[in-house]
Amino acid sequence: MRILITGSAGFVGSHLVERFLTEGHTVVGVDNYLSGQRRNTELFLSHPAFRFIEADVSTAIPYDGEKLDWVLHFASPASPPHYQQFPIETLMVGAQGTQHALELAHAHGAGFLLASTSEVYGDPLVHPQPESYWGHVNPNGVRSCYDEAKRYAEAITMAYHRARGVNTRIIRIFNTYGPRMRHDDGRVVTNFIHQALRGEALTVYGDGSQTRSFQFVEDLVEGIVRLMGVAYHEPVNLGNPDEYTIVQFAELIRSRINPTLDIVFEPMPQDDPKQRKPDNELAKKLLDWKPNVPLATGLEVTVRYFQDLTRVLI
Amino acid sequence: MRILITGSAGFVGSHLVERFLTEGHTVVGVDNYLSGQRRNTELFLSHPAFRFIEADVSTAIPYDGEKLDWVLHFASPASPPHYQQFPIETLMVGAQGTQHALELAHAHGAGFLLASTSEVYGDPLVHPQPESYWGHVNPNGVRSCYDEAKRYAEAITMAYHRARGVNTRIIRIFNTYGPRMRHDDGRVVTNFIHQALRGEALTVYGDGSQTRSFQFVEDLVEGIVRLMGVAYHEPVNLGNPDEYTIVQFAELIRSRINPTLDIVFEPMPQDDPKQRKPDNELAKKLLDWKPNVPLATGLEVTVRYFQDLTRVLI
Repeated sequence: MRILITGSAGFVGSHLVERFLTEGHTVVGVDNYLSGQRRNTELFLSHPAFRFIEADVSTAIPYDGEKLDWVLHFASPASPPHYQQFPIETLMVGAQGTQHALELAHAHGAGFLLASTSEVYGDPLVHPQPESYWGHVNPNGVRSCYDEAKRYAEAITMAYHRARGVNTRIIRIFNTYGPRMRHDDGRVVTNFIHQALRGEALTVYGDGSQTRSFQFVEDLVEGIVRLMGVAYHEPVNLGNPDEYTIVQFAELIRSRINPTLDIVFEPMPQDDPKQRKPDNELAKKLLDWKPNVPLATGLEVTVRYFQDLTRVLI
Repeated sequence: MRILITGSAGFVGSHLVERFLTEGHTVVGVDNYLSGQRRNTELFLSHPAFRFIEADVSTAIPYDGEKLDWVLHFASPASPPHYQQFPIETLMVGAQGTQHALELAHAHGAGFLLASTSEVYGDPLVHPQPESYWGHVNPNGVRSCYDEAKRYAEAITMAYHRARGVNTRIIRIFNTYGPRMRHDDGRVVTNFIHQALRGEALTVYGDGSQTRSFQFVEDLVEGIVRLMGVAYHEPVNLGNPDEYTIVQFAELIRSRINPTLDIVFEPMPQDDPKQRKPDNELAKKLLDWKPNVPLATGLEVTVRYFQDLTRVLI
């Protein structure tokens, strides 16, 4: 197959590039490096089945090559510090970017897969969240540039499916971690790893009893590949439902990197993201999928990646 | 002032044109007639302070005239039959259309006002709806092309306010009626009036005990003008909270047009819009505004408009 991936230099995008190249497919990566990283493109540049286009998909996707089989739309800032730094760009890649990718898929008679997010559930009043839950999102708060962009992206994806017959898929990605995240992602996984690698105390906000779930990126990629093989057009949750308290998570990182580090407690910021946890029943039934990689295993791989990166950069 | 109004040939847009021309302002109207009506432009073409540009604001707003003081963004299909017929155009005028209007306002240092809608509350779980309610919207159902487009429009309006300093306003318009609605609007006001004018029985879906609120367009226009004068950037509800059952409403129409008509009852369609009712406290406090036109008075004017129109067309 020939697969075009927007956001190919991003964290998840780059793992998709790797997976499809490994399976013998041809991959066209597109990124403008607003939040993607050049090193994630450089990994594949020497591969004969990989081609890269540097472009802002909100403006256009300048692909004029052979017939595509799939367009996977993963371009977008995804961490709160990034999308709040680029609110208009984030809104545009959800609207114009998604539409350009849909038009490209339509023109090629290709399948289209949208990377949506658990953020469409907002601050949910239902736990865990099934796909049928409509969410609880502030349409004009400081996070709305991301949440509403992704809700819009879902709406236009369904409109192209219903009105133009595009063979679409929508995934809602829950908290995911792994190698090739940005070190300044700003969320707890990279924060803790970097504090630990610098020999600093780990900062916990609040009393650390709040929980988070963490999905290893390989589990996510497996779910995506399986969904591409099933003609199901409504959204599908992909996430790991195992919950850890932030203190438990800090202890895991500390025990792996440096057991002598302190854990310090600071006041909870006002806009701290609330708990979200996927209901995975649909993915289980539809794709025979569930997350398989234990947190300790995934963290081992992720910490090693950042250790190697730190050595290279020093 | 010089005021550009997108959707100037639409129902609400044309009343804004009239109000501002009457007050001595210069008005630039923009419409592509997707759901606007040429007769609503022709009303003002001979006015020396009116200029019309036929354009699709989702593509561009080709205005190159003197400095604007305000850009009012009212372009969009607004009734369910229209936006479901044009789902992609509806999504685009909410995203690209709103952004083009915001960019124009930014370039001119003009104020910007977004016509949002009570549809951002979706199928609300809170009654009546205050502006602080986040809504209950299906992000990918058949109505999402309109609801999510308007939620996105609010998000990008706030992003331009926060990130670029545009002097923005957002109104959420509840059910509004008056002269210059499309006769094929598809909602209860025009349905009943047209059945009555044709001498047909009035069709009530369900048992007719469900309620609706109806705002006369002049009340809405007054609220808009007042909000333009107040530096308040969060959304403001504009609607009439007086509730009527559908049967009461049918009887009002019948008594005005032809008391001998029958009322017939048919099964409720599956996707019938749920009840919505504005909480007007904010508009009252902020603008000293409340709806003033009684339903009987507003209907009198509206029915006369459609009677005259019918005579002209016959």
